[in-house]
Amino acid sequence: MGSTSDLSVMEKAAKILNDFKIPFEINALSAHRTPEAVETFAKNAENRGIEVIIAAAGMAAHLPGVIASMTTLPVIGVPINASLDGMDALLAIVQMPPGIPVATVGINAAQNAGILAAQFIAKTDNNVKEQLKQFKQSLKEKIVEANNDLKKISFEYKTN
Amino acid sequence: MGSTSDLSVMEKAAKILNDFKIPFEINALSAHRTPEAVETFAKNAENRGIEVIIAAAGMAAHLPGVIASMTTLPVIGVPINASLDGMDALLAIVQMPPGIPVATVGINAAQNAGILAAQFIAKTDNNVKEQLKQFKQSLKEKIVEANNDLKKISFEYKTN
Amino acid sequence: MGSTSDLSVMEKAAKILNDFKIPFEINALSAHRTPEAVETFAKNAENRGIEVIIAAAGMAAHLPGVIASMTTLPVIGVPINASLDGMDALLAIVQMPPGIPVATVGINAAQNAGILAAQFIAKTDNNVKEQLKQFKQSLKEKIVEANNDLKKISFEYKTN
Amino acid sequence: MGSTSDLSVMEKAAKILNDFKIPFEINALSAHRTPEAVETFAKNAENRGIEVIIAAAGMAAHLPGVIASMTTLPVIGVPINASLDGMDALLAIVQMPPGIPVATVGINAAQNAGILAAQFIAKTDNNVKEQLKQFKQSLKEKIVEANNDLKKISFEYKTN
Amino acid sequence: MGSTSDLSVMEKAAKILNDFKIPFEINALSAHRTPEAVETFAKNAENRGIEVIIAAAGMAAHLPGVIASMTTLPVIGVPINASLDGMDALLAIVQMPPGIPVATVGINAAQNAGILAAQFIAKTDNNVKEQLKQFKQSLKEKIVEANNDLKKISFEYKTN
Amino acid sequence: MGSTSDLSVMEKAAKILNDFKIPFEINALSAHRTPEAVETFAKNAENRGIEVIIAAAGMAAHLPGVIASMTTLPVIGVPINASLDGMDALLAIVQMPPGIPVATVGINAAQNAGILAAQFIAKTDNNVKEQLKQFKQSLKEKIVEANNDLKKISFEYKTN
Amino acid sequence: MGSTSDLSVMEKAAKILNDFKIPFEINALSAHRTPEAVETFAKNAENRGIEVIIAAAGMAAHLPGVIASMTTLPVIGVPINASLDGMDALLAIVQMPPGIPVATVGINAAQNAGILAAQFIAKTDNNVKEQLKQFKQSLKEKIVEANNDLKKISFEYKTN
Amino acid sequence: MGSTSDLSVMEKAAKILNDFKIPFEINALSAHRTPEAVETFAKNAENRGIEVIIAAAGMAAHLPGVIASMTTLPVIGVPINASLDGMDALLAIVQMPPGIPVATVGINAAQNAGILAAQFIAKTDNNVKEQLKQFKQSLKEKIVEANNDLKKISFEYKTN
Repeated sequence: MGSTSDLSVMEKAAKILNDFKIPFEINALSAHRTPEAVETFAKNAENRGIEVIIAAAGMAAHLPGVIASMTTLPVIGVPINASLDGMDALLAIVQMPPGIPVATVGINAAQNAGILAAQFIAKTDNNVKEQLKQFKQSLKEKIVEANNDLKKISFEYKTN
Repeated sequence: MGSTSDLSVMEKAAKILNDFKIPFEINALSAHRTPEAVETFAKNAENRGIEVIIAAAGMAAHLPGVIASMTTLPVIGVPINASLDGMDALLAIVQMPPGIPVATVGINAAQNAGILAAQFIAKTDNNVKEQLKQFKQSLKEKIVEANNDLKKISFEYKTN
Repeated sequence: MGSTSDLSVMEKAAKILNDFKIPFEINALSAHRTPEAVETFAKNAENRGIEVIIAAAGMAAHLPGVIASMTTLPVIGVPINASLDGMDALLAIVQMPPGIPVATVGINAAQNAGILAAQFIAKTDNNVKEQLKQFKQSLKEKIVEANNDLKKISFEYKTN
Repeated sequence: MGSTSDLSVMEKAAKILNDFKIPFEINALSAHRTPEAVETFAKNAENRGIEVIIAAAGMAAHLPGVIASMTTLPVIGVPINASLDGMDALLAIVQMPPGIPVATVGINAAQNAGILAAQFIAKTDNNVKEQLKQFKQSLKEKIVEANNDLKKISFEYKTN
Repeated sequence: MGSTSDLSVMEKAAKILNDFKIPFEINALSAHRTPEAVETFAKNAENRGIEVIIAAAGMAAHLPGVIASMTTLPVIGVPINASLDGMDALLAIVQMPPGIPVATVGINAAQNAGILAAQFIAKTDNNVKEQLKQFKQSLKEKIVEANNDLKKISFEYKTN
Repeated sequence: MGSTSDLSVMEKAAKILNDFKIPFEINALSAHRTPEAVETFAKNAENRGIEVIIAAAGMAAHLPGVIASMTTLPVIGVPINASLDGMDALLAIVQMPPGIPVATVGINAAQNAGILAAQFIAKTDNNVKEQLKQFKQSLKEKIVEANNDLKKISFEYKTN
Repeated sequence: MGSTSDLSVMEKAAKILNDFKIPFEINALSAHRTPEAVETFAKNAENRGIEVIIAAAGMAAHLPGVIASMTTLPVIGVPINASLDGMDALLAIVQMPPGIPVATVGINAAQNAGILAAQFIAKTDNNVKEQLKQFKQSLKEKIVEANNDLKKISFEYKTN
Repeated sequence: MGSTSDLSVMEKAAKILNDFKIPFEINALSAHRTPEAVETFAKNAENRGIEVIIAAAGMAAHLPGVIASMTTLPVIGVPINASLDGMDALLAIVQMPPGIPVATVGINAAQNAGILAAQFIAKTDNNVKEQLKQFKQSLKEKIVEANNDLKKISFEYKTN
C-alpha cells in the first residue's frame, strides 16, 4: 500500500490470502515518500521468495508501476478511489508503457487482487487451486440462494 | 480475440510469446457470436494444459470476463480501441464484480499482455524467467541509446 | 438481475409489469458467477413462452449482453450505478458489437425498462396497449397538477 | 433520421430490414428544424400501421425522445457520432426521464437498431423470427471461418 | 421547468427576476410528458409578450431545445444535475444542431440564467440596466468585505 | 476571438450577421496575451453602441468570462475545439461562477452564436426578427427537400 | 482565492508557508467579480516584492490564468472542487494557451501549492531549502511508522 | 523525457530555454525502463547545479512524480498525448499525493514548461527576467498584428 489510509480497502485482499492459506506480508511503501524503501522491496522480492506483488495506490498512483519497473515478478495493481471516483488511479496504473505491464483490477477491487494472486500461486500449489475452485463454487451458491430469496417477493402477476 | 479485426493489435502478444519460446495458440472466439465455443474453450483450457489466457475485445468487451467466469486460470484482458478511444472496452474489462478478476493491461497493450503471461509462465520455467530479465535489460539499453542520440541535438546553450 | 443488491432499483420494473397485469418472473443470475444458469435461462426462455427479457447489472455489466448472445428475444439492459456514476455499466451494456443488440435504458432506469417491455408486449395485447396510453396520460396529469401547484408560489412580480 | 448526413450510418439498418423482408420507410425529420413534421409522424405512426420506430440523431440528440413522448410504440434510438465521439448523443438519448423510455443501441450502431426492430417484429412474424435465427447462425459461421484463417498465421512456437 | 423537483434550484432565477422587478411566470412543462403544452407555450410566447424564456431540465434534457425549435425568442437553458453530475444535461442542452441555439449557463446555474435574461431585458429597460450595474457592484463589495475578513486570520508569518 | 486560428470556425458567425444585415466588427483580443486590450474593449463596448458580444476561445478559454466580468452586456461564448475535443473550452466557458453568466453555445458552434446574437438584436429590430423567421423556415425547407431525396433511395421492401 | 469559500481548502497552503517561515499574504480576489483588484494585485506584485503567487479557483477557474497574463512571476494554480469533481477547474487552469503557463497542482491540493512555492523561494533561501529537506524526511518517517503499525495487524498466514 | 518519441513535442521547451540563453541539458530517462538512471539523475541534480527540472511523459506518466520524490528542486511536468487525448498522462502527473508537488502544464505544452522554468530562473537572473518581459510583449504584438489582419476581411455589414 502507498498509505495506511488504503488499509480498509486492502484488508479484503489479506482476507482472501489468509483464507486460502497463502503466506503474505503487508507493507506501507510510498513511491513518492519512501522511494528507497520501494526500491529495496522491489529489487529483493524475488530473492526473498516472494512470488507475486499486490500494489495499491490512489490519485497519481505510481506505486504499482514503480515496483513493476524493478522486478520481473508479476505486479497486480489496485486503483484506490481517493479522488475523481478513482479514474485518475485507474489510468495511472493500467496505462503502463510497452514492456512493463501491471495486472490491473477494478477500482478498490482488493478482493479480486487477492484472487488473482491466488490464481498465480495455484500454478504450483494444488491446495490453492482447490481453494479457488471451492471459492468459485461458493460464489455460485450465494447467487442460487439469493435467487431462492427472490421467490419470496410477492406481486399479484409474479409467476415465480 | 473476439474478432480477427483485432489481429493487427494482438500479433504483438504473439511475437513476445514466440520470442520467449512459449508455446501458444491463437483463436477467434466471440463472447457474443460464438458463446458455446467460448464455453468449450474456457472449460477445457486447464485440462488441455493451458496455463494462462489472454483475451482481447473492444466496445462492450465481454470476452475476458466471460472466460474468467468459467475457469480458475488467470485471464489477462486487453481492451481494444474500437470506439470512445477504448474507454468502453477498458471499463467493460477491468470493472469485474467481486470474485472474478481479469488482469487488465492498457488499451491496445498487446505486448504487455504477452509479457504478463510470460511472468506467469516464468514461475516454473527458468528459461522464460531469464528471457524476461534480458528483455528488461534490452528496454534499458534502448533508452540509453536514445539518450546518446539526444546528445547529437545541437542548441547554442545546450550543455550535454 | 446480476445480484440481489440491485433489487431496490429493479423493483420499479416489477411494479410497472404488475400494474400493467403482465405476468413476469424475477431471477438473480450472474453472468460471472452462475454462467450455466444464465445459459439455461437464456436458451430456454423462448420455449418457456418468455417474450422479452430485462437484464440489470452494474460495473463491467455483462449479463444483458451474455443473454442477448444466446437468444433472439429482445433483451432490455438496465445499467446499475455501482461505481463511476454508472458510466462503466452503461458502456458495458450499450456498446454491443454488430449483430447482438441490447435495448439499453438509462442508468438505474428500471421503470423505463418495465415500460419498454410493456411496449413490446402491447404488440399483441390490447389491454397492455391501453394501460400504456393511460400511463402516458397520467404522466401528463401529474405535470399539469405540478404546474397548478407552481401558481401558489408568490413573488411580487410573478404574473401567474 | 434527424439529417441526411446520417444516411451513410443508417443505411445499415435499412439493409437489415430489407434482408429480413420487413417493409419500412425512411424519413428525414428533425426534432429541431421540423418539429411539426415529427409530431405528425409520431402521432400518426400507430394508426398508419407502423409497429416500431428507429430514430437516429447526433449531438444534443432529441429526435428519439421527442418521438417517444408522442407515441406508445417502441422507439429505438441510435446515437450518431457527430462530436465528442458520440458521447453527447448517447447521453441525450439514453438518459430519458422516468416514464418515456428509448431503447438505445450503441454509438453509430445502425445495424443493431435494425436487428432490434426485427426482434420486435418477430413477435408476430415467424418468417422474421427464422431470419433472426439464421442471421445469428451466420454470425457464428463468420467467426468460425475467421478462426480457421488464424490457423494460417505461422509462428515457430504457435501450436494451432 | 421540466419537473417541479427542479424548483429548489430554479427559484434563484425567480428571485433575480423579482429583485430586478421583471414580470415573469413559472411553469412546469415537460418536453417528454406534456409535449402539446410545451408546443402551445412555445408557439404563443412571442404573441403573449414574452421576451425571453428560461428552460431547465435534467438528464436527457430536451426542454430547452424543443422550445427553441418552436420560437425565435432567445431560450436560456439550465442543465440540472439529476445524474452524472449534470454532464448529461449539459451536453443535451448545449450541443444543439446548427440553426437552433440554446443560450446555456452552468450546471444548476439558475441565478446566472436570471441575470442573462435580465441582460436581454435591459436592452430596452433602463431600470433593469441600472439594476444589473448595481448587482455587479454588490458582487464586488462582497468580495472586498470577504477580503477584509481574511485580514483577521492570524499566522505568525502572515503579512496582511 | 482569442486567436486568428479560430477564424475558420468563427467566420460562420460573421456570415450570419452579414446575411441578417446586422453591423458587426471582428477583433482578435486575447484574455491572456492582451488583457489591457480586452479590458478597453469590454469596458467601452456599451458606450460605443455595441449591443451583444460573441467571444470564442479554446483550451482554458477565459476570453468570454473575462469580458463578461467587465460589462453588463450579454456575452455569447463559443468553445473552440483545440484540444480534448473541446471539452476543456466548454467547461471553462459555461461553468461561470454565480453572478457572471456567459451564454454558451455548442463546441465550434459559431453559426449558432450568430443566430443567438440576432435573437437579441431582434428585440428592437423587426427586420432582424423577420430574417430569423425566414431563416427558421429555410431550415425546415432543407429538411423537407432532404426527405424528398430519401424517396429516391431504393430497397425492395422500402415503402416510401 | 477567488472566494472565501475556498478558505478551508487553502489554509493548508498558508500553514506550510507559515511552518517554513515564509512571509505571505492572503487575499480574496475574483477574476470575475473584482477584475480591477486582480489587475492591481497582479501588476504590482513584482514591485511589492512578491516572488511567487498561489491562485485558487473552482468551476470555470480563471483567476490563475488572469493573474499569469499580467505578470512574469510564477503563478501556481489550485483547482478547487466546486462541481464536476473539480475536473472543470483543473482543465480551466492547466490548459493555458502557449506563452502563459500556470504551474498547476492537483484538485484541492493546497498543501502541494505551498510546497511548490517554497521550492521556488528556496532558490535563494537556504533556511527554506533546509525546511523542505526536513519536510521530505518527515514524510518518510510517517510512512515508516505506518509500516510499523501494519505489523500489529494479525492474520494466521501473515508473515510480517 | 521518458522516450525520444516525445522529442518533437519537447523541442519547443528547448527552443525557449535556448532563446532565453539558459543553459540546459536534454536526457531520455524512463521511470519504468531505466529507474536507476532516473534515481541517479534526480538525486544528483541539485549538487550538479541544476535549478529546475522539466519532465515529460505520456500514458501512466510516472517520470515527473518519480523525480519529484527524490529531490526538493521544483519539477515541471508535461503530460504527453500518447493515448486518451492525453487525459491519462495529465491525471497521472497532476494528481500527486500531499507533500510531493509536480508543477503541471497543459497537455503537450512544452513551450509553457520552458517559460515556467525561465520564470524560476529569473528569480536570480535579471537577463532572463528581461527576456520574459520581452517575450510577453511579443505575444501582445502578434495579437495586435493579427487584429490588424482581421480588418482586411471584408463583409458588407462589417464595420472595422
